[in-house]
Amino acid sequence: MRRRRIYEGKAKVLFEGPEPGTLVQYFKDDATAFNAQKKGVITGKGVLNNRISEYLMLKLEEVGVPTHFVRRLNMREQLIREVEIIPIEVVVRNVAAGSLAQRFKLEEGTRLPRSIVEYYLKNDELGDPLVTEEHITAFGWAATQDIDDMLQLALRVNDFLSGLFLGVGLKLVDFKVEFGRLWEDEQMRIVLADEISPDSCRIWDVQTNEKLDKDRFRRDLGNVEQAYQEVARRLGVLPEAGPMDLKGPKAMQ
Amino acid sequence: MRRRRIYEGKAKVLFEGPEPGTLVQYFKDDATAFNAQKKGVITGKGVLNNRISEYLMLKLEEVGVPTHFVRRLNMREQLIREVEIIPIEVVVRNVAAGSLAQRFKLEEGTRLPRSIVEYYLKNDELGDPLVTEEHITAFGWAATQDIDDMLQLALRVNDFLSGLFLGVGLKLVDFKVEFGRLWEDEQMRIVLADEISPDSCRIWDVQTNEKLDKDRFRRDLGNVEQAYQEVARRLGVLPEAGPMDLKGPKAMQ
Ligand SMILES: Nc1ncnc2c1ncn2[C@@H]1O[C@H](COP(=O)(O)OP(=O)(O)OP(=O)(O)O)[C@@H](O)[C@H]1O
Ligand SMILES: Nc1ncnc2c1ncn2[C@@H]1O[C@H](COP(=O)(O)OP(=O)(O)OP(=O)(O)O)[C@@H](O)[C@H]1O
Ligand SMILES: [Mg+2]
Ligand SMILES: [Mg+2]
Repeated sequence: MRRRRIYEGKAKVLFEGPEPGTLVQYFKDDATAFNAQKKGVITGKGVLNNRISEYLMLKLEEVGVPTHFVRRLNMREQLIREVEIIPIEVVVRNVAAGSLAQRFKLEEGTRLPRSIVEYYLKNDELGDPLVTEEHITAFGWAATQDIDDMLQLALRVNDFLSGLFLGVGLKLVDFKVEFGRLWEDEQMRIVLADEISPDSCRIWDVQTNEKLDKDRFRRDLGNVEQAYQEVARRLGVLPEAGPMDLKGPKAMQ
Repeated sequence: MRRRRIYEGKAKVLFEGPEPGTLVQYFKDDATAFNAQKKGVITGKGVLNNRISEYLMLKLEEVGVPTHFVRRLNMREQLIREVEIIPIEVVVRNVAAGSLAQRFKLEEGTRLPRSIVEYYLKNDELGDPLVTEEHITAFGWAATQDIDDMLQLALRVNDFLSGLFLGVGLKLVDFKVEFGRLWEDEQMRIVLADEISPDSCRIWDVQTNEKLDKDRFRRDLGNVEQAYQEVARRLGVLPEAGPMDLKGPKAMQ
């Protein structure tokens, strides 16, 4: 079966799905950082992120957070519902790290007074700038109601994932999610889309504060593959397979 | 009379006022830009800004916007009520210019879909970063109610000044205001503080789009003093005086 390639991004490829309104999301091993100025490959990442995102989206659905996820198809692919992506990256932070630590000269690792939700415009040419609700509504990237929906969902995701991760000895420092608009019976609703994985989260070991996420790649900390595997292992979704399988069948590369 | 100097800023000096709860705001000719990386003097600016800010604050009071302004004392000084400055610069924009034009790659001069209000943290060490309501409330720089009050007042200031300026052939492109907390009869209210002048506004001639504000200094456009004088002249507050008076009495320098 030859499927039409809809979009190739930095970490994933979207193919036409088997039915209208569906897509196949293929997870690559490619990694980028700093707005794609840094590029590399994290062997097996695609396989692991496919599993991790599947697991987290399914568990979120179970607690009532609507998502685009339908089912995993194979090692690197999952079936999703096609949505109209809202061009805003919603970031939730529990602990100071990354650009927030820089912006306010906070020591990385400082717990924030409370969770902070930020919006960034999904626009590589502009370098994904921080935006405010004023910018979002004035330029029509999303309506006030959309922002409210995204905010409420993002906070629920944060609560649930903070708990889930803590249960397996992991600290959810921050994460980025994307949302999309889904039409059904003439009704529009906003659902969680894209992925939730160590590519889109900062996850530290509770005991050692060891980073188990893409920061190992960004900052050349080594043991990048191992970090992704450790997260999958703790969540109980590490595929029982040899290294060959992690790379995926040749035909899928 | 020797007055205690409370604070010396980049453009103004605050002295102890004649009564408790008052201050004397002295307007200097000093000009800075780009977080004080660029420094200079605009001869007569202090005299003109003292007049312009007096006039605008008085007119705003008349339409019901509370301000810190009491009365002008002399060429370079005005009596104000001491407030607890909220460390947020509130920026209102009608037309794309400056950092907004840069952030979103908009052509300077493009009218915005609607007025946009932004908040910047007043913190030179951090470079006055853009902040969101989330940052402001999470870090305790202002409460949600304070932000609401500032937003409503800033929009009223924008409406009134846009009209006033238009009436004299000027376009209010954007401006920055500061607010402070004032306690009276055990009640707290938020009032407009600091100054409103060509130092804190972008003002263009309606016909020619000529810049009549601090951008002439920032961008080395020349005729800087003349621009400030033209704004004062259009508003009808240009002091009838020779250039010596504009520099102010020696004793005050
Ligand atoms: N359910 C969905 N329907 C449509 N598009 C989706 C859906 N889920 C995710 N996407 C989009 O698919 C793309 C995933 O690819 P990838 O994450 O590699 O892109 P990217 O290189 O990160 O670029 P971007 O900055 O746009 O995310 C993203 O543009 C994402 O917004
Ligand atoms: N009514 C007031 N009561 C107390 N402080 C005030 C009042 N009005 C203005 N201020 C403060 O007085 C100072 C004015 O000085 P100036 O504008 O030169 O400072 P600055 O160098 O710009 O530094 P800043 O970045 O703090 O404004 C500012 O810090 C301003 O916030
Ligand atoms: Mg992406
Ligand atoms: Mg100032």
